[in-house]
Amino acid sequence: MSKRPHVVIVGAGFGGLGVAEQLAHVPVDVTLIDRHNYHTFQPLLYQVATSLLNAEDVGAPVRSMFRHQENVTFRMATVAGIDVAGREIQLEDGGPVAYDYLVLAGGATVNYFNTPGAAEHAFPLYTLMNAVKLRNHVLERFEAADRDPNLIEGGALNFVIVGAGPTGVETAGALSDLFYNLLPRDYHQLATENARVIIVDLGKEVLAQFKENLRAYAKEELEGRRVELRLGEAVAEVGPTFVRLKSGEEIKTQTLVWAGGVRANPLADMLGLPQGRGGRVKLNADLSTPDRPEIFVVGDMGEVASDGKVLPQLGSVAMQSGEHVGRQIARRLLDEPGQPFKYWDKGFMATIGRGSAVVEFPNKMTLHGPLAYFAWLGVHLALLSGVRNRIETLWNWGWSALTHDRAARIIIDPKDEEAKQVNLHEA
Amino acid sequence: MSKRPHVVIVGAGFGGLGVAEQLAHVPVDVTLIDRHNYHTFQPLLYQVATSLLNAEDVGAPVRSMFRHQENVTFRMATVAGIDVAGREIQLEDGGPVAYDYLVLAGGATVNYFNTPGAAEHAFPLYTLMNAVKLRNHVLERFEAADRDPNLIEGGALNFVIVGAGPTGVETAGALSDLFYNLLPRDYHQLATENARVIIVDLGKEVLAQFKENLRAYAKEELEGRRVELRLGEAVAEVGPTFVRLKSGEEIKTQTLVWAGGVRANPLADMLGLPQGRGGRVKLNADLSTPDRPEIFVVGDMGEVASDGKVLPQLGSVAMQSGEHVGRQIARRLLDEPGQPFKYWDKGFMATIGRGSAVVEFPNKMTLHGPLAYFAWLGVHLALLSGVRNRIETLWNWGWSALTHDRAARIIIDPKDEEAKQVNLHEA
Repeated sequence: MSKRPHVVIVGAGFGGLGVAEQLAHVPVDVTLIDRHNYHTFQPLLYQVATSLLNAEDVGAPVRSMFRHQENVTFRMATVAGIDVAGREIQLEDGGPVAYDYLVLAGGATVNYFNTPGAAEHAFPLYTLMNAVKLRNHVLERFEAADRDPNLIEGGALNFVIVGAGPTGVETAGALSDLFYNLLPRDYHQLATENARVIIVDLGKEVLAQFKENLRAYAKEELEGRRVELRLGEAVAEVGPTFVRLKSGEEIKTQTLVWAGGVRANPLADMLGLPQGRGGRVKLNADLSTPDRPEIFVVGDMGEVASDGKVLPQLGSVAMQSGEHVGRQIARRLLDEPGQPFKYWDKGFMATIGRGSAVVEFPNKMTLHGPLAYFAWLGVHLALLSGVRNRIETLWNWGWSALTHDRAARIIIDPKDEEAKQVNLHEA
Repeated sequence: MSKRPHVVIVGAGFGGLGVAEQLAHVPVDVTLIDRHNYHTFQPLLYQVATSLLNAEDVGAPVRSMFRHQENVTFRMATVAGIDVAGREIQLEDGGPVAYDYLVLAGGATVNYFNTPGAAEHAFPLYTLMNAVKLRNHVLERFEAADRDPNLIEGGALNFVIVGAGPTGVETAGALSDLFYNLLPRDYHQLATENARVIIVDLGKEVLAQFKENLRAYAKEELEGRRVELRLGEAVAEVGPTFVRLKSGEEIKTQTLVWAGGVRANPLADMLGLPQGRGGRVKLNADLSTPDRPEIFVVGDMGEVASDGKVLPQLGSVAMQSGEHVGRQIARRLLDEPGQPFKYWDKGFMATIGRGSAVVEFPNKMTLHGPLAYFAWLGVHLALLSGVRNRIETLWNWGWSALTHDRAARIIIDPKDEEAKQVNLHEA
């Protein structure tokens, strides 16, 4: 083994990749650990769930990304525990792995806020497998309703989304495109116009973090696309065939998409260090942890702050905080003092459906409509990892725009009953 | 309901699609039933299994294919039984479907010939889910060996393929490309050269159905690609970590790909009609069944014969027999007599690996090497359903040829443990 300091990064999301890339020319050995062998481009998961993109388009093999960065070793593994005092992490299958510097970049996971039935019945949308499962389920609902139209009465074609933030709004808009523009052409008998898309949110606004004019535009666009809004409402209970709201209203549905809240990856709980809202680890200004200067946290798992203000859990925050921590580790090696993290606000954006999006620039200027939509496409294309995924995604979008078709409309269900494998005796 | 005759087709493979398309302008109502909502392009499944193609590239949504053919209704369902006397079929999820004409096009499934352990441990390669599972498993073996190189000793990187026919040879060649050309660049520490690919076949030849010069070429090419051959050998027993051969040799392996034999879809057994070798239903010369003229069988499920000679179970036989049955049904409506099926032999072909293939033309002329490889690419591209899948597949092949990369190298495992979903109480 080399004598160079060993940096262990847990998580190959935007944050973890940022750290590893920043360490390319720094004399350290890096071990990058993730449960999956690919980086998930989370902003496009909703497009996998709605049959617009192939699963493979938003999953980039991590090993390929670091093929030419000799100081990075990838390990597909799940973290079982962290021995903070002993400076090593335990893996479920192998390990332990000792570290000199540890960077936690595990991201966020869904938070059901103890809503009864949610953990059993809701569909989260944080992993590629989540997206594939939701796609299978949505397409199966239409196949089931086609076989037996009585199921429509029972809510088979009602789709409820919790959360009117970007994920909820983007998913609702994409489902609306799918249900009202594409599927009617393929179901010769099914009354697809009976499909419903309903967003439920505790707040009074959709896209609450955007400026007023964009919120108004988004609301109007969603309603024009037949998305029903239940604002100022919360989910009280989820069952296999219904969602009950706090107001008492019961919606018949077999599909609840949970885009309603996140919490830090439970990895954060393993540290035994102080946590803030949503389980996010409290951090120094340079993103190291107060008691353990050799441990850093980036992205959604940490209370990443800039100018004393805790930042929202965004991809751009994860990316920038990862790069910052890479630089801080390099400075430590040279005994240079840590620097406070400073976020470069690039604004934010969300699509509402085909040809419709909202953009809020950091200078508070706003943009909406088709131009905002093309800006959204361009930015996300640029952010995708790898030339290949960019070209494939552009191709899928272009094809879909030209033909109004979606090729990834296939149900590859893990539960898929295989034809019975039979042993046959030849006479 | 209309009074037009009702044709029920079971199976949306090459045979079933051929029947349905042939009936486009015939005054019948067609119900096409399949377990999946997509048509599987089986000749390219091995490319999904070896990370060259996306799963979505070889699965074409059936509904899209018949969007403009008004007389076809698609139904995603599994057949539970056939009431031959009552002329109706039972579905697992939904009521009986009555028919005037029934066409069985269920294809073939794997035949383990009662080999102990095969049903539990072997990987067949007949469905898209089979291919995805094999891909996950192969990639996982390398990740496991990278975590713990001792596993190589235990056979983690030994891959055994039963069957030296086209499927076995194509899979072996593609695995060799993956292991020896691509993966070494991505594993900085793992000794990937220890990976082994071994073909076992009872026969003395690889690609036994091809002419002698092609067999010799294929053997030489495989050996040049480090594929080991165990010819004149059979598998006696399969375990989770070994394969025992009839000769007594035991090969340590965790991966046995079964490309060693097929039998008719068990649907054939439901008819109660005479069956031949491999469970294939015996047929009249026009491909109707002897006792039930209203029932036809096409493709791998039937003993499809031409000029009195039973044909091999090939995609081209399925396609042509399907089209033939479509025409026979049209003739019945006009009270015209049935015609014997006549197969138009187009020869056959198989790839051995990048830049290497064999082609045997019906006139017994042969071709091998890079030109044969390009012929293979062209033919399979032309046979793929839909412009879109053709372009995507061409793109994937081109990308792979130019970069020696494979993008679909991601493990999307259904068993994939999701991060624990945690409910969090806010203080």
